[in-house]
Amino acid sequence: WKGEFFPEIPKIKYEGPSSKNPLAFKWFNAEEVILGKKMKDWFRFSVAFWHTFRGTGADPFGAPTKSWPWEDGTNSLAMAKRRMRANFEFIDKLGVDLWCFHDRDIAPDGKTLEESNANLDEVVALAKELQGSKVHPLWGTAQLFMHPRYMHGGATSSELGVYAYAAAQVKKAIEVTHYLGGENYVFWGGREGYQSLLNTDMGRELDHMARFLEAAVAYKKKIGFNGTMLIEPKPQEPTKHQYDWDAATSANFLRKYGLIGEFKLNIECNHATLSGHSCHHEVETARLNGILGNIDANTGDPQVGWDTDEFLTDIGEATKVMLSVVKNGGLAPGGFNFDAKLRRESTDVEDLFIAHISGMDTLARGLRNVAKIIEDGSLNELVRERYSSFDSEIGALIEAGKADFEFLEKKAIEWGEPKVPSAKQELAEMIFQSAL
Amino acid sequence: WKGEFFPEIPKIKYEGPSSKNPLAFKWFNAEEVILGKKMKDWFRFSVAFWHTFRGTGADPFGAPTKSWPWEDGTNSLAMAKRRMRANFEFIDKLGVDLWCFHDRDIAPDGKTLEESNANLDEVVALAKELQGSKVHPLWGTAQLFMHPRYMHGGATSSELGVYAYAAAQVKKAIEVTHYLGGENYVFWGGREGYQSLLNTDMGRELDHMARFLEAAVAYKKKIGFNGTMLIEPKPQEPTKHQYDWDAATSANFLRKYGLIGEFKLNIECNHATLSGHSCHHEVETARLNGILGNIDANTGDPQVGWDTDEFLTDIGEATKVMLSVVKNGGLAPGGFNFDAKLRRESTDVEDLFIAHISGMDTLARGLRNVAKIIEDGSLNELVRERYSSFDSEIGALIEAGKADFEFLEKKAIEWGEPKVPSAKQELAEMIFQSAL
Amino acid sequence: WKGEFFPEIPKIKYEGPSSKNPLAFKWFNAEEVILGKKMKDWFRFSVAFWHTFRGTGADPFGAPTKSWPWEDGTNSLAMAKRRMRANFEFIDKLGVDLWCFHDRDIAPDGKTLEESNANLDEVVALAKELQGSKVHPLWGTAQLFMHPRYMHGGATSSELGVYAYAAAQVKKAIEVTHYLGGENYVFWGGREGYQSLLNTDMGRELDHMARFLEAAVAYKKKIGFNGTMLIEPKPQEPTKHQYDWDAATSANFLRKYGLIGEFKLNIECNHATLSGHSCHHEVETARLNGILGNIDANTGDPQVGWDTDEFLTDIGEATKVMLSVVKNGGLAPGGFNFDAKLRRESTDVEDLFIAHISGMDTLARGLRNVAKIIEDGSLNELVRERYSSFDSEIGALIEAGKADFEFLEKKAIEWGEPKVPSAKQELAEMIFQSAL
Amino acid sequence: WKGEFFPEIPKIKYEGPSSKNPLAFKWFNAEEVILGKKMKDWFRFSVAFWHTFRGTGADPFGAPTKSWPWEDGTNSLAMAKRRMRANFEFIDKLGVDLWCFHDRDIAPDGKTLEESNANLDEVVALAKELQGSKVHPLWGTAQLFMHPRYMHGGATSSELGVYAYAAAQVKKAIEVTHYLGGENYVFWGGREGYQSLLNTDMGRELDHMARFLEAAVAYKKKIGFNGTMLIEPKPQEPTKHQYDWDAATSANFLRKYGLIGEFKLNIECNHATLSGHSCHHEVETARLNGILGNIDANTGDPQVGWDTDEFLTDIGEATKVMLSVVKNGGLAPGGFNFDAKLRRESTDVEDLFIAHISGMDTLARGLRNVAKIIEDGSLNELVRERYSSFDSEIGALIEAGKADFEFLEKKAIEWGEPKVPSAKQELAEMIFQSAL
Repeated sequence: WKGEFFPEIPKIKYEGPSSKNPLAFKWFNAEEVILGKKMKDWFRFSVAFWHTFRGTGADPFGAPTKSWPWEDGTNSLAMAKRRMRANFEFIDKLGVDLWCFHDRDIAPDGKTLEESNANLDEVVALAKELQGSKVHPLWGTAQLFMHPRYMHGGATSSELGVYAYAAAQVKKAIEVTHYLGGENYVFWGGREGYQSLLNTDMGRELDHMARFLEAAVAYKKKIGFNGTMLIEPKPQEPTKHQYDWDAATSANFLRKYGLIGEFKLNIECNHATLSGHSCHHEVETARLNGILGNIDANTGDPQVGWDTDEFLTDIGEATKVMLSVVKNGGLAPGGFNFDAKLRRESTDVEDLFIAHISGMDTLARGLRNVAKIIEDGSLNELVRERYSSFDSEIGALIEAGKADFEFLEKKAIEWGEPKVPSAKQELAEMIFQSAL
Repeated sequence: WKGEFFPEIPKIKYEGPSSKNPLAFKWFNAEEVILGKKMKDWFRFSVAFWHTFRGTGADPFGAPTKSWPWEDGTNSLAMAKRRMRANFEFIDKLGVDLWCFHDRDIAPDGKTLEESNANLDEVVALAKELQGSKVHPLWGTAQLFMHPRYMHGGATSSELGVYAYAAAQVKKAIEVTHYLGGENYVFWGGREGYQSLLNTDMGRELDHMARFLEAAVAYKKKIGFNGTMLIEPKPQEPTKHQYDWDAATSANFLRKYGLIGEFKLNIECNHATLSGHSCHHEVETARLNGILGNIDANTGDPQVGWDTDEFLTDIGEATKVMLSVVKNGGLAPGGFNFDAKLRRESTDVEDLFIAHISGMDTLARGLRNVAKIIEDGSLNELVRERYSSFDSEIGALIEAGKADFEFLEKKAIEWGEPKVPSAKQELAEMIFQSAL
Repeated sequence: WKGEFFPEIPKIKYEGPSSKNPLAFKWFNAEEVILGKKMKDWFRFSVAFWHTFRGTGADPFGAPTKSWPWEDGTNSLAMAKRRMRANFEFIDKLGVDLWCFHDRDIAPDGKTLEESNANLDEVVALAKELQGSKVHPLWGTAQLFMHPRYMHGGATSSELGVYAYAAAQVKKAIEVTHYLGGENYVFWGGREGYQSLLNTDMGRELDHMARFLEAAVAYKKKIGFNGTMLIEPKPQEPTKHQYDWDAATSANFLRKYGLIGEFKLNIECNHATLSGHSCHHEVETARLNGILGNIDANTGDPQVGWDTDEFLTDIGEATKVMLSVVKNGGLAPGGFNFDAKLRRESTDVEDLFIAHISGMDTLARGLRNVAKIIEDGSLNELVRERYSSFDSEIGALIEAGKADFEFLEKKAIEWGEPKVPSAKQELAEMIFQSAL
Repeated sequence: WKGEFFPEIPKIKYEGPSSKNPLAFKWFNAEEVILGKKMKDWFRFSVAFWHTFRGTGADPFGAPTKSWPWEDGTNSLAMAKRRMRANFEFIDKLGVDLWCFHDRDIAPDGKTLEESNANLDEVVALAKELQGSKVHPLWGTAQLFMHPRYMHGGATSSELGVYAYAAAQVKKAIEVTHYLGGENYVFWGGREGYQSLLNTDMGRELDHMARFLEAAVAYKKKIGFNGTMLIEPKPQEPTKHQYDWDAATSANFLRKYGLIGEFKLNIECNHATLSGHSCHHEVETARLNGILGNIDANTGDPQVGWDTDEFLTDIGEATKVMLSVVKNGGLAPGGFNFDAKLRRESTDVEDLFIAHISGMDTLARGLRNVAKIIEDGSLNELVRERYSSFDSEIGALIEAGKADFEFLEKKAIEWGEPKVPSAKQELAEMIFQSAL
């Protein structure tokens, strides 16, 4: 075992399901081919810099709990660089190739925008060097929610000066994402929403948000950045209502403002459940709208009304998500980003590894289960059979938009009372459960 | 006091706020002009035939509790006609001009589609006569959820025969709505959704739904029906997930399938809260998407996870809804439909009147409060002032889509750290509460 | 294959995890010994007469969907008997020994209480005969929620006459449960609660409920019925607030009125989640209060706000529930009752079997997983180790109530800042997930 | 206008409902007698030091937003004293007599327990002086949730050393509350709960909590502190499950461990709604269990799943809470504590006053409405009448526990089918709404 930051932690290896070693993969075997693709290519796992290296364990009622040995208690540039080295040692030991970041997580805010940009450039230069040829960002983003200037939003702030500042910050974040070889750029509008409709001009704010995103697209094209632009829906928290509420709401916004071809979605499982949907539903909704771009792999607690950002350990949920991902042919140039954090009370360095291994293994089990389901074939057949009456001549007319109400009425009278078979939901659940 | 069905109930009159008479209006004064329009024209109140005349008091754990004196315990055609007469006496005594209905609520199902249509024609002929020159439907609709044939949906059923049957039923319902002088036609897709994604082909179902709505629009135009087509969003119940989840989801569907110009929305307050939004939010979302068509005036219990369809008695909520309605310049040709029912335990005939009076008075108080808020002016001024930095030259550039990221970055650097004033939410709430 | 009612269905056998036969057990092997007890003795599975034989598929928006071949469409006494025969054929083919019932589910309401009792006696006599020596009720109960007379409650009705009627009905239901050899008697207070506090005297209603339960206990003792009396908590639905909200609320009621020694709880998983708790939490709460009596084995949908009463197919949840059951040394004389129903859209006779098999197999997997967890030992050790500082001399003083604040303050000063180790939640989750 | 900290803010006066002055009371008139008691004596309003003087505007996604002119950016002892002076100027200008505090909010943590205690003593001495003869604490409490040592709980920490530390801290907090003339002492167990049952010994933790509270009671008595000990229920946040979940859960705990006579409850409206209950329900539950001690006057957003601690501005909710308080004859020695905070985006000093005025006025309107309801009498009469069948000879027998099942069965047969009148909920709501 070696390394500057995690000397006790070995490079994590695949040991198979019978292993009892917490620091080994039991289900994720990066190079193993499942359903025609290497596991690592199905997942494109990415470490989230903010949760893993900037997560302090603070919560609304509690002070930070983590005291990682490499931290010196400052938010200095030197500390930012040291932390970046820890990030790359972590990535290397975990055996992944991708990472994600917010601008302000990797480099400290300066007194002015220029100083902040300079700080960022210095840390990014180091990151570029540490990335080498193998590692690069799955995506980058700008942190437009932590600083008090963004308390009313960035693109949707009631203040013009904040809108301009946000634009400048996103401009820079796109630039450094491009420089580092990032494959996507994410917008999570944590403050783009309202606390109360009484003091809010929602129509004007939504228009501003559209103008902002248009300008971002124009700038991306101008500098030759070909990465996918992603919107990350979340219903609320910190605001009472966030404009990118869920996948369908985001799609409506993109369609309304003519942006649907320029953006995809980054679906987060915990955000899905907070909006009243299963994660499977949100992923499917994005897929059916042609905008499934990336997955923030985490989970929430179904009895808890805020974002807990836990590592996913529910095999059933992982299997359902992977059913959609496989239908989508994978997510590239997107992937799975661990927008998940240690519990506040988990304070050992090894917990960082255990949590990631657990999350990766759970999704890997999900993929293996999907392979079983596909091989078995009976679940797909059950669904195909349910809709088979539409695989007919009249079904084809309907699906082609050529069956008008008069024609259909004639048929309805001709056919009499239709037979309606069982939906076989319990059988579908039995087949599904058997594959877990 | 007079009448065949409600002999004890007088015609309901306006007696003003100091009245203690449960059978009088204290706030709703039909002919009184508020904000330039008669109260009755702001509201266009409509009685819902199903809740008022077909509501039995049954719930998932209990048998019917109502035993209205005019009911004979049958679902016969004769009973349907008698019930229709009760409906018009009720409407007359309540003093409204509009009503709403499902096809199967007003006339009994027959053994065949032809027989059902014949039953419907007979009752509709009577309704036409009873309407006279003053009364007509705010809207009509087809009941595509009660009969077991629709257990997998109507337009989204997995069975072709059901799709055809649903088309025939909607065709007829549009015809009778048109015949009765209805001003709108509503689609509430209670079964258009799924119980489980495991046995559902959601993409195919959504495509079918779009084809169905296209055909409905084509048929409406063919027969010269100029009423507005309305979709009524509801997140779930009876299905786990209904495709018209909320206003934004419905708007996305309409945009995706090119139907946005052909439909508006019928927003129900209880459906709004079940989808995680305030009613005010859903009404505003519809308004900002240009598709606010009608309001199902009811309310739910914030601690209850199913549709309770209560008459709205919350003055604050009524005032917020009316703020949006006034901004929209009213709802015509839509209006307010009481999609609200007596509690199961309310079994007196007079309860039907008390409930409607209470709901109408609450909305009337809401409108009166909006008038106070507008007259006072300070709430509008607070909002205008918040966004005033955009009422500038650069604000205009941004709003015209002419401010690119490079220009904005230059400005951000030039301006330095922006000043961000208080959002004054507590002041807004104080002003609002003072108007109640 | 044989039988009068289910001729197509064989006796269900255990075929092991590799079986693809929907009509076979893959995990539940009745006679197999796990953790020192036969599987059938850990579970004591019981078929719920109401869901399985009286579930019609009706919901608040839909008519019945089931048309079982043995039903003649009536609620006659002859039909009740025929249905009872179907019940025992079902029980026999499923291979369980226990069943559960409400009085009014097994026999039709009469015009008077005497007639209802006579009907019940006649069906009960047949059931007694069909039970033979092997089968008997896990529990019986009275249906105090369906009939309109109970619309304000039974024991908590505002009407004295209803209170008396409910008492008479429970009296009879205890008698027949006793006669059939039932091991428990359940109170589910579906209407014992309120819809609005504005028209409710909650204090008086709670007092009435206590008087009612005291009288039930007295009567049980008088007739020599030694079965356990069980309260089944549910937070709401059909009422807005049910008095037996959750396990802790029920325990408080029992303690307040001196009934804690006379009752245990029947925990339902779906009721647990509706009250904001995990099922595991409610089972543990009952266990720690010494009142875990029975489990209504079902599950809900975490995104749905009403009781869906689904068969449990979540392996993780099943494993957690079984962790508690094993800690409790089993549930006898209680057991697992399938308070679960087919989805409305599942209309094949075989679906009844598939659903039960799926539910039994899932719980059986849960038990097998618990055996793995116990054998492995690392999860128990993790918990034991976490609290080991209390396994000390001072810990013993604290736990014995002998460490006062002055002593503890002295120690706190002496010891200085305490060391607080990681809670290792992710490790615990990893160990748990590995056992699934 | 005068004062060191709020020079722009006058002493807040009552100006009546027609006033448009945001810095005046419109409904709260301290000396006015309503229902036989001065308004100030009904409410006993208390300012919460933490929200008003330590609330920074930080949230899980955002940095502090407040920059009050009296703050110097440090957590020094000098700053603590200056802040305490601001507190008393605020109290004086608002015109209330009571305040509340956590130990660590008013004085900084030291490096050791002794140092922390010394800091506290120094600030408390100043507070005592500033209180003068008119002002004193409604209650004091110890902050056992912010410091990382409490991450697993205080009384329920898995670490013995933390238990001892918590005991020492509570000991001191009781002492200073006593010294300052506090009338109550509160336990809010923000960390007394669990994040996961997998790594938790819930039974052992609950036993520890009981031992801890017993020791607190013993110590209180020893030093002659006669204030009421209060438990403040909250369902969750920060933990997934807090042991004092709601009023009934807390009552069960107190009963189980024989502590019911020693504690009352501090009901918070926002905690009530998070636990799935209306605030009215929780207040009534505490009242009926004889343990209604104090109210944390705030409100939440019904569509938000975390504690928003907003100032209550809903007149209906305020009126319902006051209905219970009046039934309870007031709350003394408890009162109303503003556990409410400015929105993060409200950053003007005057917002602190506006928010408090708005909250006080809303509750004052509630009390005035209750007076109207009582004077009108019809709501009370409706409820009395509903239960009048129990005001009979047999009703008295039942309520005295003297009506056994055999007697009741005889009566039920004698009486035949009971008549069940309407519950008149809509009428009750109409009467209630008319009083607002």
